Amino acid sequence: MSEVYAARRTRLRDQYGAAGSAAALVCGPANVRYLAGGAPPGASLLLGPEGDVLLYPPVPEDGGPGSRVDEGLRTIVCERSSDTALCAARLLAESGTGAGAAGPLAVEEDHLTVARHRALAAAAPGVALTDLGRAVEQLRVVKDEEEISRLRIAAEIADQALGELLESILVGRTERHLALELERRLVDHGADGPAFRTSVATGPHSGRAAHRPTDRRVEEGDFLTVRLGAEYRGYRCGVARTFVIGTAPADWQIELYELVFAAQRAGREALAPGVGCRDVDRTVRQRLTAAGHAEALDPVTGRGVGLEFAEEPQLAPGSMGKLDACVPVTVGPGVHLPGRGGVRIDDTLVVRPEADGGPELLTITTKELLAL
Amino acid sequence: MSEVYAARRTRLRDQYGAAGSAAALVCGPANVRYLAGGAPPGASLLLGPEGDVLLYPPVPEDGGPGSRVDEGLRTIVCERSSDTALCAARLLAESGTGAGAAGPLAVEEDHLTVARHRALAAAAPGVALTDLGRAVEQLRVVKDEEEISRLRIAAEIADQALGELLESILVGRTERHLALELERRLVDHGADGPAFRTSVATGPHSGRAAHRPTDRRVEEGDFLTVRLGAEYRGYRCGVARTFVIGTAPADWQIELYELVFAAQRAGREALAPGVGCRDVDRTVRQRLTAAGHAEALDPVTGRGVGLEFAEEPQLAPGSMGKLDACVPVTVGPGVHLPGRGGVRIDDTLVVRPEADGGPELLTITTKELLAL
Repeated sequence: MSEVYAARRTRLRDQYGAAGSAAALVCGPANVRYLAGGAPPGASLLLGPEGDVLLYPPVPEDGGPGSRVDEGLRTIVCERSSDTALCAARLLAESGTGAGAAGPLAVEEDHLTVARHRALAAAAPGVALTDLGRAVEQLRVVKDEEEISRLRIAAEIADQALGELLESILVGRTERHLALELERRLVDHGADGPAFRTSVATGPHSGRAAHRPTDRRVEEGDFLTVRLGAEYRGYRCGVARTFVIGTAPADWQIELYELVFAAQRAGREALAPGVGCRDVDRTVRQRLTAAGHAEALDPVTGRGVGLEFAEEPQLAPGSMGKLDACVPVTVGPGVHLPGRGGVRIDDTLVVRPEADGGPELLTITTKELLAL
Repeated sequence: MSEVYAARRTRLRDQYGAAGSAAALVCGPANVRYLAGGAPPGASLLLGPEGDVLLYPPVPEDGGPGSRVDEGLRTIVCERSSDTALCAARLLAESGTGAGAAGPLAVEEDHLTVARHRALAAAAPGVALTDLGRAVEQLRVVKDEEEISRLRIAAEIADQALGELLESILVGRTERHLALELERRLVDHGADGPAFRTSVATGPHSGRAAHRPTDRRVEEGDFLTVRLGAEYRGYRCGVARTFVIGTAPADWQIELYELVFAAQRAGREALAPGVGCRDVDRTVRQRLTAAGHAEALDPVTGRGVGLEFAEEPQLAPGSMGKLDACVPVTVGPGVHLPGRGGVRIDDTLVVRPEADGGPELLTITTKELLAL
């Protein structure tokens, strides 16, 4: 893996070099992991004319899966401050031949607070600070096959955990306990942990985008929406499904389910290299709006996944970019009717050209309306 | 509770008003919860001349325990942006009689990134931005009795979960599974969730400050360090204990345990209103340094707890402040010997004057060296 990280850093160096910077300081946690391997929270990465340095906080978190750091990197534990970016700025300022002389230091203004940025400037008074922008986020959009294979395993784990839940008795159990059980199963199947807080939404809560589990118990006739994801070696993947509890779904449940299912399928089928992100969103949104659910829709239909559960691109009305091959995204519309509940169906797929068989579905749990 | 939140906002208003600001924008998540109740992630609070407004992101997380928002507050869901601080700035700029005319807007430069701060300034061109600093963090240091009572319950929950674990068979189980079981027990006993990632460290991992559980199994003769905490109605409390596995601890284990225990006790006994934070730290550190463990020590001996697990004050060599009554802090030294393991003992206590009985211990699990 060491060459992979080194190659990523070289691509970034080419970019900020072309923009006139002599060095770059990366402190966005997922960005640091992308360029340096599984660094602990709080680490910063300094790419400079005198070589690359990974800076650790005084008491770095240790152990755990997926936490292998690029062995080719020089590492330093910061003793004087828990702010590793500040240590990096001092290091640069103290090295006589550093970026101060050679040119400006590009920093991530999207990740540094105003207060930290000011402290950096004060710690390295001879160094001009410029904005690295979202350069690392942009590098992260298209995945290599190793990254996709980790996402594939993360999806398998989430599917397994969900499949086991469906075989157990659900009526009478609370949302919170079901969510906890799912998280335990994720780890049992080899996940580093959940990719995000598992959401279990019953009855009137079902279909919501970000429901936090409560003590409500599953009842006969409920819609049950489960949204979970696994992290595997740092990569995060998610799935959401909606089921009905009991034998015979009501007519409104069947109708709403079929509508959301058709919209989600249209979104999945629209995924292809060169397609605009907002066009995928529109494909999904149009169907739901036409059925009178404009009010109930989320602002975003899907998102990129990788080292973070929600990263670029975004499938939303205002998104400007186009999809590329090897970009993994979620497609997950939902409709929630206040007081009644609703449906949410979410998959993770990898954009692939038609010659390669079209979009690759990672989360393969059935999307038939199951009565449990 | 509504009056409590209103009173806190009034205290803040007095402060920024005295500093010449007409309005304040609070976006630090725990700060928003302190002033507005259990607001969802991503919410911002605008305190202005035209009244206080809580701004929600387009799809706020819903449900869950402890998420009651002050009913006396006006709330707005931001439709145009997921950045609620940006919405607040627009709101202020668009209200003709707003702070733009009345005076500057104080923002939290410690929580806003450089990029967000720039976007705020652009969204409200007529409004001067000043720094609110850590004013809300300072208000949060001294707790009221309701806050302390939530911390007390959080501590009871953590003690219960830990106590049950000690009664189960440990040998042969992995760190990850023990950690997951503890987190399930926390929720079973009424926690909103774990206060932080539960750490279970066996054998050579034991005693570390931030060990992330691995697949290592508990073995006879191991030291076992468990560090866990509960969140109860938004308040977070923690405890760490070290045990020995098997019947007879080795001499080095007994010796190291007694040393860390004595240092931790000295730290607990030093807690009193008016005592310097760094003096408590020195009391603990001196004992461990005198025994030759200077190298192995963490930079911080203890921390304030409340809405965040680590908040102000900090018990560390460089800390400038003094303790007050009704300030809850952790006292948790540890020593880790590379390759062998170590000991960590951590409690949460509330600083109380001697007349009230001295420091109140919230985490009451025994600190005798138990052989399990």
